Amino acid sequence: MYRKFDDHHMVPLWSEIGNIMPSQPEPSAVPYAWRWSELSALAKEAGELVPVGRGGERRAIALANPGLQEPFASPTLWCAIQYLGPREVAPEHRHSQNAFRFVVEGEGVWTVVNGDPVRMSRGDFLLTPAWCYHGHHNETDEPMAWIDGLDVPFVHYTDGSFFELGPLQVTDQSTPQYSRSERLWAHPGIRPVSSKSNTESSPIAAYRWEHTDSALNDQLALEDEGHPVTVEPGHAAIRFVNPTTGADVLPTIRAEFHRLRPGTVTESSRVVGSRVFQAFEGRGRFVIGEKVFEIEKGDVVVVPSWARASIEAESSLDLFSFSDEPIIEKLGLSSPPGLVPPMSL
Amino acid sequence: MYRKFDDHHMVPLWSEIGNIMPSQPEPSAVPYAWRWSELSALAKEAGELVPVGRGGERRAIALANPGLQEPFASPTLWCAIQYLGPREVAPEHRHSQNAFRFVVEGEGVWTVVNGDPVRMSRGDFLLTPAWCYHGHHNETDEPMAWIDGLDVPFVHYTDGSFFELGPLQVTDQSTPQYSRSERLWAHPGIRPVSSKSNTESSPIAAYRWEHTDSALNDQLALEDEGHPVTVEPGHAAIRFVNPTTGADVLPTIRAEFHRLRPGTVTESSRVVGSRVFQAFEGRGRFVIGEKVFEIEKGDVVVVPSWARASIEAESSLDLFSFSDEPIIEKLGLSSPPGLVPPMSL
Amino acid sequence: MYRKFDDHHMVPLWSEIGNIMPSQPEPSAVPYAWRWSELSALAKEAGELVPVGRGGERRAIALANPGLQEPFASPTLWCAIQYLGPREVAPEHRHSQNAFRFVVEGEGVWTVVNGDPVRMSRGDFLLTPAWCYHGHHNETDEPMAWIDGLDVPFVHYTDGSFFELGPLQVTDQSTPQYSRSERLWAHPGIRPVSSKSNTESSPIAAYRWEHTDSALNDQLALEDEGHPVTVEPGHAAIRFVNPTTGADVLPTIRAEFHRLRPGTVTESSRVVGSRVFQAFEGRGRFVIGEKVFEIEKGDVVVVPSWARASIEAESSLDLFSFSDEPIIEKLGLSSPPGLVPPMSL
Amino acid sequence: MYRKFDDHHMVPLWSEIGNIMPSQPEPSAVPYAWRWSELSALAKEAGELVPVGRGGERRAIALANPGLQEPFASPTLWCAIQYLGPREVAPEHRHSQNAFRFVVEGEGVWTVVNGDPVRMSRGDFLLTPAWCYHGHHNETDEPMAWIDGLDVPFVHYTDGSFFELGPLQVTDQSTPQYSRSERLWAHPGIRPVSSKSNTESSPIAAYRWEHTDSALNDQLALEDEGHPVTVEPGHAAIRFVNPTTGADVLPTIRAEFHRLRPGTVTESSRVVGSRVFQAFEGRGRFVIGEKVFEIEKGDVVVVPSWARASIEAESSLDLFSFSDEPIIEKLGLSSPPGLVPPMSL
Repeated sequence: MYRKFDDHHMVPLWSEIGNIMPSQPEPSAVPYAWRWSELSALAKEAGELVPVGRGGERRAIALANPGLQEPFASPTLWCAIQYLGPREVAPEHRHSQNAFRFVVEGEGVWTVVNGDPVRMSRGDFLLTPAWCYHGHHNETDEPMAWIDGLDVPFVHYTDGSFFELGPLQVTDQSTPQYSRSERLWAHPGIRPVSSKSNTESSPIAAYRWEHTDSALNDQLALEDEGHPVTVEPGHAAIRFVNPTTGADVLPTIRAEFHRLRPGTVTESSRVVGSRVFQAFEGRGRFVIGEKVFEIEKGDVVVVPSWARASIEAESSLDLFSFSDEPIIEKLGLSSPPGLVPPMSL
Repeated sequence: MYRKFDDHHMVPLWSEIGNIMPSQPEPSAVPYAWRWSELSALAKEAGELVPVGRGGERRAIALANPGLQEPFASPTLWCAIQYLGPREVAPEHRHSQNAFRFVVEGEGVWTVVNGDPVRMSRGDFLLTPAWCYHGHHNETDEPMAWIDGLDVPFVHYTDGSFFELGPLQVTDQSTPQYSRSERLWAHPGIRPVSSKSNTESSPIAAYRWEHTDSALNDQLALEDEGHPVTVEPGHAAIRFVNPTTGADVLPTIRAEFHRLRPGTVTESSRVVGSRVFQAFEGRGRFVIGEKVFEIEKGDVVVVPSWARASIEAESSLDLFSFSDEPIIEKLGLSSPPGLVPPMSL
Repeated sequence: MYRKFDDHHMVPLWSEIGNIMPSQPEPSAVPYAWRWSELSALAKEAGELVPVGRGGERRAIALANPGLQEPFASPTLWCAIQYLGPREVAPEHRHSQNAFRFVVEGEGVWTVVNGDPVRMSRGDFLLTPAWCYHGHHNETDEPMAWIDGLDVPFVHYTDGSFFELGPLQVTDQSTPQYSRSERLWAHPGIRPVSSKSNTESSPIAAYRWEHTDSALNDQLALEDEGHPVTVEPGHAAIRFVNPTTGADVLPTIRAEFHRLRPGTVTESSRVVGSRVFQAFEGRGRFVIGEKVFEIEKGDVVVVPSWARASIEAESSLDLFSFSDEPIIEKLGLSSPPGLVPPMSL
Repeated sequence: MYRKFDDHHMVPLWSEIGNIMPSQPEPSAVPYAWRWSELSALAKEAGELVPVGRGGERRAIALANPGLQEPFASPTLWCAIQYLGPREVAPEHRHSQNAFRFVVEGEGVWTVVNGDPVRMSRGDFLLTPAWCYHGHHNETDEPMAWIDGLDVPFVHYTDGSFFELGPLQVTDQSTPQYSRSERLWAHPGIRPVSSKSNTESSPIAAYRWEHTDSALNDQLALEDEGHPVTVEPGHAAIRFVNPTTGADVLPTIRAEFHRLRPGTVTESSRVVGSRVFQAFEGRGRFVIGEKVFEIEKGDVVVVPSWARASIEAESSLDLFSFSDEPIIEKLGLSSPPGLVPPMSL
């Protein structure tokens, strides 16, 4: 009978149910940390050996979760370090995958998104929503590296990839301090009357470090004044959002920034969905399940679905993070209400 | 038969249909303009004769549309000038009516909204959503006057008024530069992770002039650079919004700020719903139907529903505006699609 | 000073605040009941004296709340009895006001809504959303009367009335058992793939008595079987909804049907917003504030905003009801949370 | 350098971009058809050899797409044939995966969903939303087989699986004609006032064949009368929806029913996302890319993402279908606007 099953492309559930419907999530992805010292050294080496441009399109190196067969940080999230040498240009293209960049160090590169030149500087969080043409150009004599985050694995999984080449040179070589998108949209509580329709992705191309830093400082100062505005004592956190809706910046990706006071230990928790953190400044450690990862500036950590995690700040610790939480929330996949037994494990 | 109708509290439609279901809106409210010079002089006079405080609660004088029987600027909108003498305190209360304040001149008053002290300065737009306790205190030796906008007529009409007295003194006499609400919420494209729920009204208590001015300047500069970001040539406009949703700041009131280059004449248009403008800076005129109103700093103009209106800027002209558009939009009362004949009148 | 106020169309708040911002709603509208015996007799008399057709448009007689100056059942709601003699035709027109009809007795009239003929029979609830052409024709030798409900007062108040005449004769004189709208949309949990867009008003032109009756019977049977599906013991209730959204049938009007077992006394309650009930079958009484109204088949009762009301069923009692609750809910005007003192009065 | 990449769990994008970001979707899943004659024969054989119950939980056999490594119909969708012998009971359990059943033939089984017994008969579409306890029991001396559809692959992919065992026997052995859920919710355009909150999944446990058939007949009759209510000439289609929202029945799965007149050939089209069809009655063929599948009653066909597909009806052809379109739509993965070149291939 089982041979007949095979012949007819049928598989009995009773032999599979434990694997595909476990009593709680059993991800193949594992907790893991990549060192910025190694990432940036290898990116530099690649910069000397591999040309950027048409064909490979980008000098980007993906962080491949050791538990997965494909070069993905988690089942849904792509994370890569991208490197652009002095005066180099990454040609324009566009794709249905949503992308962002986060700059842990360096400056001097402009990314051009649908013709709008966007300065990239330390601490900035930059968006390239689906199907926007984009290229990068380095205007300095120094190389620059940053991390890219995309929903490449998810779009791959759902078979929704579209990709088109654009010009070899970026369409606008100017180097303004602020992008047009910021001048139009990055004013608090304000939107232009000329843009009445809401958009699925944020129209803000760059979320500047000055605002992120200021918002986090304000939260900690308010906590000092006795107001419960942090997520837990000593732990300030902001979410980057689409100003047309107040929702996440991209349809598939949530992005946040966390600041922990020295000595803070976050409450241990776990959620359905995967998360990636990059240390921006400071030292500390992630405790994920049984594993401990010491981290410092630039290190990247992945927390798989349902893995119990806690963060300990040795110094003041600044962390950028992104996750697939919009996928989980929109599709109703958060852990069942009242799921007491697994929560207490 | 008609006497029987009367006796039984019945009224035949055939004798009334022309009045209550006209072919297009025939508002009782009329276009009108109030002069700031007169408003502020009378407010000052009232300040010398009438005490502020418990009982009357506020030294506010409503702008009463000459076409309406009640002291309302339009059927849905309340607009008043409020005056607070040197060192005076307006005691705390709360009500189901939504309120805002806009400051055309002066400084030195703090409004305390649910215990959060909010500085009031020229150009600021300040919110007091429904059922928030609020009082005001003047910390200077100079009086200060500003305009209040509320949905008093609408809440009166729908029989939804609730009102409660609070303390005679404001609950926090401190005078911080920025309110706690601003420190938590007024960062562009950023929201605190500790506040995940959206709110019907904006959590930002003050929309500061510095941001409004900067957003308008940016729009005009972008227009100069060739980008179509203004509502029409020479006419920049921003809307104040709730950062949790991107929608209007209050459930019943839309608030905007418009800046016209010298010489700009806006396209003549008309909409269902009423609007109030206050000139913030500059000179110009409103042409509403057959009427023309010359305006300058502080003057208040009301445009009734379906009145055809255009604005002409003599100098650079800055205008604050508010309207009942959220009521019209949420209840589907915008003019019918394809209503060509009335539009061409 | 007060004369100067008058001269400049200004009114001091301190002399008005008690009237326009009371501590809880003080509606001008009063509780009231109209007798079907009187309504139908007067409608019949009007039928013999007043022609239907162009000019007056409809032989409808409004129920005028004794507390209001205009012929409105409540500040927001219009209710009228409409009468169509044997073989008469009410010509087509359309307006921005939303309308429905409810049939307490009779049959033989078809209403034609945007060209779709809709049979009107006892117990049916029928929709004419804003800006749909509609006319009625009586195909029998007997007269027929029913009640019309509209948002006429609200559209009048917001100055949003648009009205256009259509043909003198209805555009389709056929008399099908079911309208096209029902054949396309009135299947439970099913929508046509050809109509992907949601609509502000329900696309179902007639909610048939057979479905209403069956849903109410099922609720009471389920209650008998021990399942808590009624709103309170002995009180079944259904809401008519827009199948594209699950929300109310019209943007401004909620419509429901209630069935009380003999002897049921509903919990006394009050809400912001006004409601109108028509007894469909059975006997009982409304206790509204201090007033008691005995009711039987066809009687119409209005409950003003914030009036405390309870219903007592002498026999099994069927009640159709409509209200302005969508206005109250969408604009955030429900009574403030935790408003304990007024609730306990 | 590439060995260093390996050592540090890094993978260069330039060697991978063609595979993971193709210019248009290149699914691993292939078009395929399973014959009902084979499915039901093998299910019967399994019924004689394999016990139902605790451990394997269900006698269900998955349809495994030949292009995929796991036993999934498509990357996101699970489809299995389930077989219950005479008088057998499948014990209760619950899981975070959303499930439905569709009955192509047979009767006599009741599924008990959160304690509510639901009759299963030919043509019925039945829901078991996430985390509802459910078991099945066959009350006859004949076996019964049906298809199950779930989002098992998607929940597996996102690492969101939760599973709990329930009682060995179903919690209610009664065999009512209609479930409580239907009696409360399956009335057209009507919802119970006692259930004001909307739900993510439909509260209707069974969508009965009588309603599906009637809605499809009505569409074709309306088409005959000249009204454009079908999706294309000769092609009627309905979508099963959640009556609380008008949206899809499950957060991750869309379900529809299509009826083609004899001779109808549907327009060739392709979409992002995968679809599964089961022929319910009639004969015809699917043309998917270069492949042709002749189908008749019970046959199951899978159409992968972006595969161009058309259906040809030899006789009148009834087709049940389900897809992952809610995932695609909510996450913004539909094909880019104006993607002309790929569309014209």
